[in-house]
Amino acid sequence: MESILKNAIENNKKWTEFGQVASYIPELAKGNSEALGACIFDTNCNMILGGDYDTRFTIQSVSKVAILICALIDKGKKTVFSKVGMEPSTDPFNSLAKLETRESHKPLNPFINAGAIVCTSLASGDNGIEKFNRIHNMIKRMTNNDEIEVNHSVYRSEKLTGNTNRAIAYYLKGANIIEKDVEDVLDTYFKLCSIEMVVEDVAKMACVIANDGIAPWSNEQIIPKEVNGIVKAIMITCGLYDSSGEFSVNVGTPAKSGVGGCIMAVAPNNMGIAVVGPALDMHGNSIAGKKVLEELSQQLNLSMF
Amino acid sequence: MESILKNAIENNKKWTEFGQVASYIPELAKGNSEALGACIFDTNCNMILGGDYDTRFTIQSVSKVAILICALIDKGKKTVFSKVGMEPSTDPFNSLAKLETRESHKPLNPFINAGAIVCTSLASGDNGIEKFNRIHNMIKRMTNNDEIEVNHSVYRSEKLTGNTNRAIAYYLKGANIIEKDVEDVLDTYFKLCSIEMVVEDVAKMACVIANDGIAPWSNEQIIPKEVNGIVKAIMITCGLYDSSGEFSVNVGTPAKSGVGGCIMAVAPNNMGIAVVGPALDMHGNSIAGKKVLEELSQQLNLSMF
Amino acid sequence: MESILKNAIENNKKWTEFGQVASYIPELAKGNSEALGACIFDTNCNMILGGDYDTRFTIQSVSKVAILICALIDKGKKTVFSKVGMEPSTDPFNSLAKLETRESHKPLNPFINAGAIVCTSLASGDNGIEKFNRIHNMIKRMTNNDEIEVNHSVYRSEKLTGNTNRAIAYYLKGANIIEKDVEDVLDTYFKLCSIEMVVEDVAKMACVIANDGIAPWSNEQIIPKEVNGIVKAIMITCGLYDSSGEFSVNVGTPAKSGVGGCIMAVAPNNMGIAVVGPALDMHGNSIAGKKVLEELSQQLNLSMF
Amino acid sequence: MESILKNAIENNKKWTEFGQVASYIPELAKGNSEALGACIFDTNCNMILGGDYDTRFTIQSVSKVAILICALIDKGKKTVFSKVGMEPSTDPFNSLAKLETRESHKPLNPFINAGAIVCTSLASGDNGIEKFNRIHNMIKRMTNNDEIEVNHSVYRSEKLTGNTNRAIAYYLKGANIIEKDVEDVLDTYFKLCSIEMVVEDVAKMACVIANDGIAPWSNEQIIPKEVNGIVKAIMITCGLYDSSGEFSVNVGTPAKSGVGGCIMAVAPNNMGIAVVGPALDMHGNSIAGKKVLEELSQQLNLSMF
Repeated sequence: MESILKNAIENNKKWTEFGQVASYIPELAKGNSEALGACIFDTNCNMILGGDYDTRFTIQSVSKVAILICALIDKGKKTVFSKVGMEPSTDPFNSLAKLETRESHKPLNPFINAGAIVCTSLASGDNGIEKFNRIHNMIKRMTNNDEIEVNHSVYRSEKLTGNTNRAIAYYLKGANIIEKDVEDVLDTYFKLCSIEMVVEDVAKMACVIANDGIAPWSNEQIIPKEVNGIVKAIMITCGLYDSSGEFSVNVGTPAKSGVGGCIMAVAPNNMGIAVVGPALDMHGNSIAGKKVLEELSQQLNLSMF
Repeated sequence: MESILKNAIENNKKWTEFGQVASYIPELAKGNSEALGACIFDTNCNMILGGDYDTRFTIQSVSKVAILICALIDKGKKTVFSKVGMEPSTDPFNSLAKLETRESHKPLNPFINAGAIVCTSLASGDNGIEKFNRIHNMIKRMTNNDEIEVNHSVYRSEKLTGNTNRAIAYYLKGANIIEKDVEDVLDTYFKLCSIEMVVEDVAKMACVIANDGIAPWSNEQIIPKEVNGIVKAIMITCGLYDSSGEFSVNVGTPAKSGVGGCIMAVAPNNMGIAVVGPALDMHGNSIAGKKVLEELSQQLNLSMF
Repeated sequence: MESILKNAIENNKKWTEFGQVASYIPELAKGNSEALGACIFDTNCNMILGGDYDTRFTIQSVSKVAILICALIDKGKKTVFSKVGMEPSTDPFNSLAKLETRESHKPLNPFINAGAIVCTSLASGDNGIEKFNRIHNMIKRMTNNDEIEVNHSVYRSEKLTGNTNRAIAYYLKGANIIEKDVEDVLDTYFKLCSIEMVVEDVAKMACVIANDGIAPWSNEQIIPKEVNGIVKAIMITCGLYDSSGEFSVNVGTPAKSGVGGCIMAVAPNNMGIAVVGPALDMHGNSIAGKKVLEELSQQLNLSMF
Repeated sequence: MESILKNAIENNKKWTEFGQVASYIPELAKGNSEALGACIFDTNCNMILGGDYDTRFTIQSVSKVAILICALIDKGKKTVFSKVGMEPSTDPFNSLAKLETRESHKPLNPFINAGAIVCTSLASGDNGIEKFNRIHNMIKRMTNNDEIEVNHSVYRSEKLTGNTNRAIAYYLKGANIIEKDVEDVLDTYFKLCSIEMVVEDVAKMACVIANDGIAPWSNEQIIPKEVNGIVKAIMITCGLYDSSGEFSVNVGTPAKSGVGGCIMAVAPNNMGIAVVGPALDMHGNSIAGKKVLEELSQQLNLSMF
């Protein structure tokens, strides 16, 4: 398996040249566009590292998985889906247009920015700090890493330049979908996006989800089974923004990408995989990361389909 | 002419029953849905009042005319139209969707909320208070009324509930179309919308525009002729939100409506007319007010077409 | 006046280089992109020609003016506007999207393709041939030219490649807005678009409209006054596709453009103007033609605003 | 298992009252809105029938699965997906708007009407009749039923009233995505939609897909494994129109619904399920059918997530 991973990275390294590092948040533009690394962590706690596995990155939209998990645990399926939909989006992740044109004004799903902002507001906690701690703590447990922290330069950069997200949040407030203080919710959301990891951490998160919500290192049920199933279903249909359908065909596993260049993939009852490659395609997904996952899916027969 | 106005009001009073007072700003919901009044002020300074002419109302979007005038005077046609378009909108006045789907992200025109917010930011002044004073002063001159003031209950209500406008403004900031502090610009905009008048004031404003920008009571050129022409052109194509085309066919004069229930109509080289009737149609225009203007246009042969 | 026209053409000839001849109908691609000619015909029957005034072109969307006139005369304002709106469109002339997203499925206005196809179906006549004859006859009277005919190469090219218009027409049929045989209505519409003229013909049509519907050469009321007024109003708000607003600001007269490169402009109670220049801007309007009209409007003080 | 199926039908029969039989094709409106039946067919060839299992229905969009299979076998993955996307749609199944607004004009996926019309044109055959025979034959093999035939009343009704599909097809022709004669392709498509079945037939089709493309009754590989995987992936993300995401969360199996009231569900390596209930929800899916599948999924633990 080690050589399969190594080959997948080497064979697809060339794709990094065809993508671009996210630039709409100035700090993200500093990402190394040539980096490509990966980690496989299986349900028996075996770990394989490959390529630039020590590249540090902010998890960005990968945080939406943990946010959704907390919202579902803390408020229940019914309440969460009364405020956010379950349908894939054909628009980019930061789109506002559909909020307006759909009668309910509900965000289409929890994995576009609008939906994740709503789910952030639904996590337990009386204020932004408590909500952050709630979700941060979930992430620490899923990564088995107590030292996971926010990258403060990225956080400040997000906060300073996050006007489209601010627009989304005020629109949701105007439509009575968010009730809390908008700036407080946004601040929490920006912090969660700015959490810094390496692929090992993300692969462990993916492995917990692959393992029906149970941490393989402790046999602790971190995520209730029903919540875990909902999350996998939404990862399949909505995990890679407006190219989720293509990913389902070509890779065939629940997954979530982030504009920091990470993709988390879940091979149920088998393994979690994380790839990092900050050069993105036009949909905001790691361009080489997707290719690595395609090759791994074929070589290791990971597709659910 | 007095009896023509009286009849137009009486004949169309029944339409007030088919409309609804704006409710999205709580203070506006207190408007009297049965009221219907009008004022004609001609370029010889003759004035005719009819119906509930003493109904007080906030001017809401009618302020967009003064805002556009100030932006054009203070920054020039070229700068203004580099940041806002000149095209009519098929979407409602508070729509965000087109901002996103048009490549430039420029608001379609100065008479939808997004466009007026941009124009507010373009008026002279180093901060919101100076910008407000600049436009407030223009309004005082156009109404020949130094006592025009903000209705503070409406203003507070707008500020408190104006999250869709806040979303619009942050989106524009994110697209680099507004450079100023968003809350400061919004505050100015909310105050301008909350300015309180009676139809006499609005009819005088309309008459200045009808008179090529010259105040008929002082012969002072308040609005430069070129700016005045641009404003009339945009009033024809964009003045009644997404029913501007119908108004051009059925009334045929430059006009601007506001959700406070007022419609300002300009019969070039002839007269200004203001109607107030807080019961609105589904586009946000005074439902009986439009009918009164249709009847006046036919009786007085006011259509430009 | 002759030198004003001459200068306007010479000064703006350079703009032809920045546009492109319509290519979506193969025959149109043969147009001479460098040509620029104009004709002014005033209500006293004075005519001035300038530039490449003998360039022959197909009228394309300029036919929509005659189609609307016939629909209004034959079926009345109420029936026509029950099947087509009066509102300007922000989408391109051949767009389908708004048909679907608006609840009524009515075309936005008579000057986008969908609206003109509906109006064609509303003209008098039991079949396509009779409808064509009806509208063709109106055009002959408005141009005072009995020899106006269809360019059959263009017509065949339109018919062969007109699949987007075919899609529009079938959509309208599916929405019960067109009742007639779709191919028959389309055939009539394609023929009307393919009518060939020179600027003299179009300027005379414009002059009839400028003259309240009365042919200045015969004092015959060709177009009823009310219909003529409606047509002027719609020309102001919708005449230049999705740059109608800009044209109102910069030229300020009712007008209609066609992708054959002609723009017809109406200076009420004064003159009709036609310009031809097959190089188009991105909205489908003659790029140099618009500039010529801007200069003429300023020099001759033609703007209604 | 028999009692589980029986209970699922009885428990959810009440939902039929909340839906409506499809009415846009007059013949479909004759469907029995109270009917609710189902069939389970497993990979060991065990069959269980329940409720109104002998209700005859036309398969409508369920035919899109066979159409996609044939297109993929006959032209290959690369060619098919150069003409149709893989992304879920947030618009209704017969929408045109996205064709226009997406740069490529490609239909979003093979399971909206536009995409299925493209795939029909891609099946082997020199003309519509040959293409129909090709796909009809595939359906006969997948159902193990040589007597599957078109319901000619429904077919004529579709053909007569299918103007929105005709609009879609002409639009695709205009965008050079369909090259064939539009009426010929449409005729084939209408016939395929009008194929009549009972739930037993559909359950067998589903079972072939559940069994990696191998007919369990003959061990014959009817669908190549790779094609079968693509089809399952697209069924998960796009199978229930704009409520595919919800179905993935609540049922969790590849599926395809049709407006005739049938839903086909695939439990991989386990069973095929077909439910029929002509009363539809607002998305065009059998309202009670979905509820039956939710209950079966929970009771039989069918979700992939």
